[in-house]
Amino acid sequence: MSDTPLQVSRFALNELTTFTNTLFERCGFAPERAAAMARVLIEADLMGHATHGLALLPWYMTMIDKQQITLQGEPEVIADRGACVTWNGRRLPGAWLVCKAIDMALERAPTYGTVTVVIADGQHIGALAVYLMRATDKGMMILLASSSPSAVGVAPFGGRKALFTPDPLAAGIPTGEGDPILLDISASISTLNLARQLHDKGQDFPYAWAMDADGNPTHSTAAVVSGGGTLLPVGGIDHGHKGFGLALLVESLTQGLGGFGRADSPTGSCSSVMIQVIDPTAFAGRDAFTRQTRWMVDACHDNPPRPGIDRVRLPGERALATRREALQRGVPLGEAILAGLAPIAARLDLAMPVPRG
Amino acid sequence: MSDTPLQVSRFALNELTTFTNTLFERCGFAPERAAAMARVLIEADLMGHATHGLALLPWYMTMIDKQQITLQGEPEVIADRGACVTWNGRRLPGAWLVCKAIDMALERAPTYGTVTVVIADGQHIGALAVYLMRATDKGMMILLASSSPSAVGVAPFGGRKALFTPDPLAAGIPTGEGDPILLDISASISTLNLARQLHDKGQDFPYAWAMDADGNPTHSTAAVVSGGGTLLPVGGIDHGHKGFGLALLVESLTQGLGGFGRADSPTGSCSSVMIQVIDPTAFAGRDAFTRQTRWMVDACHDNPPRPGIDRVRLPGERALATRREALQRGVPLGEAILAGLAPIAARLDLAMPVPRG
Repeated sequence: MSDTPLQVSRFALNELTTFTNTLFERCGFAPERAAAMARVLIEADLMGHATHGLALLPWYMTMIDKQQITLQGEPEVIADRGACVTWNGRRLPGAWLVCKAIDMALERAPTYGTVTVVIADGQHIGALAVYLMRATDKGMMILLASSSPSAVGVAPFGGRKALFTPDPLAAGIPTGEGDPILLDISASISTLNLARQLHDKGQDFPYAWAMDADGNPTHSTAAVVSGGGTLLPVGGIDHGHKGFGLALLVESLTQGLGGFGRADSPTGSCSSVMIQVIDPTAFAGRDAFTRQTRWMVDACHDNPPRPGIDRVRLPGERALATRREALQRGVPLGEAILAGLAPIAARLDLAMPVPRG
Repeated sequence: MSDTPLQVSRFALNELTTFTNTLFERCGFAPERAAAMARVLIEADLMGHATHGLALLPWYMTMIDKQQITLQGEPEVIADRGACVTWNGRRLPGAWLVCKAIDMALERAPTYGTVTVVIADGQHIGALAVYLMRATDKGMMILLASSSPSAVGVAPFGGRKALFTPDPLAAGIPTGEGDPILLDISASISTLNLARQLHDKGQDFPYAWAMDADGNPTHSTAAVVSGGGTLLPVGGIDHGHKGFGLALLVESLTQGLGGFGRADSPTGSCSSVMIQVIDPTAFAGRDAFTRQTRWMVDACHDNPPRPGIDRVRLPGERALATRREALQRGVPLGEAILAGLAPIAARLDLAMPVPRG
């Protein structure tokens, strides 16, 4: 996740939403799908995850032009056992598939207690963090894991050849009245996106977060971007078996349960997703759940900070503060993002959104 | 997890099992409970996790003497929704509770697809890794998470006061014909057990895996054992938000869903556990699942190792090799462990097991 770029303009949420909805509709997506795609991208910009926001639109347009995103039709239902559902996502828009799956899981969760949906071979889903509040707003806990079986970037611990993607595991944890905890842990320390961003600015990683092609730890972003190196798993050289384990877990939950993945050597962009909604009501109860999670949040906030840290923050806390500010002051978009949108708007005969004065 | 100590004797599995079963029975546990407790401890010794094997017996005896382990009765059923079950473990033996819960989940998994059992306030469960094959042997995937709400050792990322336990998340992943993948990732880099072990030998951590009481990273095991310091979360000082996230996830799945935890300020030893059995048959199917996981295992084994590493190993691979050796050559027990067993055997009028010649 990157910080919002420094030179930003701010846009009214509804104007930006209408712009992006229309953009996707003019590409041929039905309104509901266009809206889900727009919402997921803009939500990332709202939360400060600018690399996963409208910055992705030029890439999405390229994929649409190359017919790599399926415009129409439904996911194929591979299995539906009520509490366990498996879809072939047919490279339909990931944002729409995931929102649809979460909504189905939320609807069924009161009946089954937990509902697990696995989506094989859907298209790119963006930032996992943006989906979590869909569940936590309803008092539900949610787990969300994804992998990209056609891509690599992370070697198994002890090896030096890329085999996995950063394989994030995210969780939304309701806490009652207060903000939910919004986790997003990837199995690698960093991401290819961050490596590219830093590399473009001529910068390296602050720590040895990568490994060169020979298997030596390095701060170099060039090693990853163009040198055949890899991203180190969480824990790095000294305890990277932790990140390796997380990658294996996420690959199994997504590609294993979905029955489609690296064993099929897929090409192009695709993603495998596992969604699990957990209804605390089916366990010790909703109040009993949030009594514990609320206590935990308070205990973290009350924890004395270590040197150089102003205070302990919960995962998601900064993103939710950024989001509140963006809802008030407008959605921030950097110059580079706007420069990427302009030719798309021109081509689709759309007026660019006007920044707030 | 520690390596097996150098000075070891080896014992026949059946003799050691009979000894430990009888030991627990003479303490007042019914045969089925004694057997579960014995099996879980000995299984840890078989897999090379000696700190979680029979080495725990003296501590268990102390807890039994202090009536901190409940001898009789069943767990209280807080909720049973078929696919979701919540128990109050009433400080019953953790090994017996977890085995019972896994067996129930395995029995129900073909019906529901996934079965989740949460056990609040049970007693110590030992090493998570030893439970996983109970599920993978039946072709099921299993997730197992535990926390100890009466203990602390790990501070939230950015803070310096211990708030969490190492909060392990384990997973058993079937791969078809071959060995299962047996993951056990804790939210802290190291454990209090390892800190104590190293400290007893006058050794420090090989890396800065701890934080002193002032919040500075340190190699010192003394800082953790007696200096008011804490274990650093996975990722350490530079990316410890990953381990922090994992801790929050595990605490929520165990104490949150169980409705009992730190908010209740429990005292004594206790554990909160979440077990989830996932039947791949309810998703894309068992063969489709193992086709992906088997591919992953092979790809890891084929991965070129980095300098200083002989080959890439999957999580659990070394433990399973150790286990095979132990089944053949006998269960290894170090001198210190035997010294701990002798007074217990004497007190319960039990003959000590005889090492293999």
